[in-house]
Amino acid sequence: MASAMAGPMGAVIPATERTRLRRLPARASHDRAAIDAILDEALVCHVGFVHEAQPYVLPTTYARVDDVLYLHGSAASRMLRGLREGVPVCVTVTLLDGLVLARSAFHQSMNYRSVVILGTATEVTDDSERLRALEAVVEHVLPGRWRQVRRPSAQELRATMVLRLPLLEVSAKIRAGGPLDDAEDRGWPCWAGHVPVELTALAPVPDGVIPAGAPAPRLPFQGRSEP
Amino acid sequence: MASAMAGPMGAVIPATERTRLRRLPARASHDRAAIDAILDEALVCHVGFVHEAQPYVLPTTYARVDDVLYLHGSAASRMLRGLREGVPVCVTVTLLDGLVLARSAFHQSMNYRSVVILGTATEVTDDSERLRALEAVVEHVLPGRWRQVRRPSAQELRATMVLRLPLLEVSAKIRAGGPLDDAEDRGWPCWAGHVPVELTALAPVPDGVIPAGAPAPRLPFQGRSEP
Repeated sequence: MASAMAGPMGAVIPATERTRLRRLPARASHDRAAIDAILDEALVCHVGFVHEAQPYVLPTTYARVDDVLYLHGSAASRMLRGLREGVPVCVTVTLLDGLVLARSAFHQSMNYRSVVILGTATEVTDDSERLRALEAVVEHVLPGRWRQVRRPSAQELRATMVLRLPLLEVSAKIRAGGPLDDAEDRGWPCWAGHVPVELTALAPVPDGVIPAGAPAPRLPFQGRSEP
Repeated sequence: MASAMAGPMGAVIPATERTRLRRLPARASHDRAAIDAILDEALVCHVGFVHEAQPYVLPTTYARVDDVLYLHGSAASRMLRGLREGVPVCVTVTLLDGLVLARSAFHQSMNYRSVVILGTATEVTDDSERLRALEAVVEHVLPGRWRQVRRPSAQELRATMVLRLPLLEVSAKIRAGGPLDDAEDRGWPCWAGHVPVELTALAPVPDGVIPAGAPAPRLPFQGRSEP
């Protein structure tokens, strides 16, 4: 039952006291390329912040550009208005890769790839960086989309807050493969192994009348169950 | 670009000052059945807690039993050892349901269902409740699995910590459907709509020799792309 995902955070680049891996260090990744791959594949992050001693964790979209993670949202957002004051933040991104079905309840687990970023966000005030960040968020969801959509108006830009979080204190943790059963359980009479899971895109649902010649989107991960 | 997911938390049952919805209240759910359905469908939660003024957000497995969310993990886990001291915690569960491709960058969004639980966790010390919680976690991943696996030994139980978090201050937030474009953008020459996404189970990968007569698992969400 020892859930690998319940363990503490992975190791860091550079390692700091508060993010150094305490348990299962073999699952930590020091590889920045591995970290970037997770951030670029996932679509949603979970933003953690503290308000009056209470932690809050909210899902949101994001994009990575080089060494920066961009968050954005309504300029009226309580969360973003709090974060731009420079409070400590934790952004966690998790990809669920599989269910690990061990022979013992104790060794049930999950395959996953996760990234944890600690730091402080700052508001982006430069309009060209703001536009690049918003472009990155749109392109992150669907590459090529930015050149298709109407760009933000000046009024929309004013209504949007963009925050930058540098990838300075960042760690990845990865579990892959089958169960790690105890030797004496190998003969236990049940199926054991792992079941890979993945996010799949289904048939696009058009909104009203679509102009002639505007092709339906093809998602990067749409290959398997495409209609 | 206003990401619906970046907004503040949904409304609550009962509503409290710190969880009352501030923006987009139409997306909040007061329906406990809707909350339970989200908690029961998702496989991973994100646990937020504060340590020395720094928020941390870590993914882990869980299970709901009636009005309680159970977390578990190694008794050596720093996170769990911290939580059992009674510090405030936030557990967030998010199901990504689709990509919303609006005609304007500003209205790009995501379809999702999320639940936010605020509260304080306590350690479960009663062994029968601990076993029921662990059973619920195993059954949550794959119904019927608990009667197949070897149950936890006394030593494994001692090595496992179980925490209970009551579903007292809990809220759901849901976005569904197509884009909400401005009227003047309806003629913009690009495809617009939404692309549903879902978690799909792929072919199970057996671990070594599987005993005769032990069937491969069928995941509840395996229907669509089953090999």
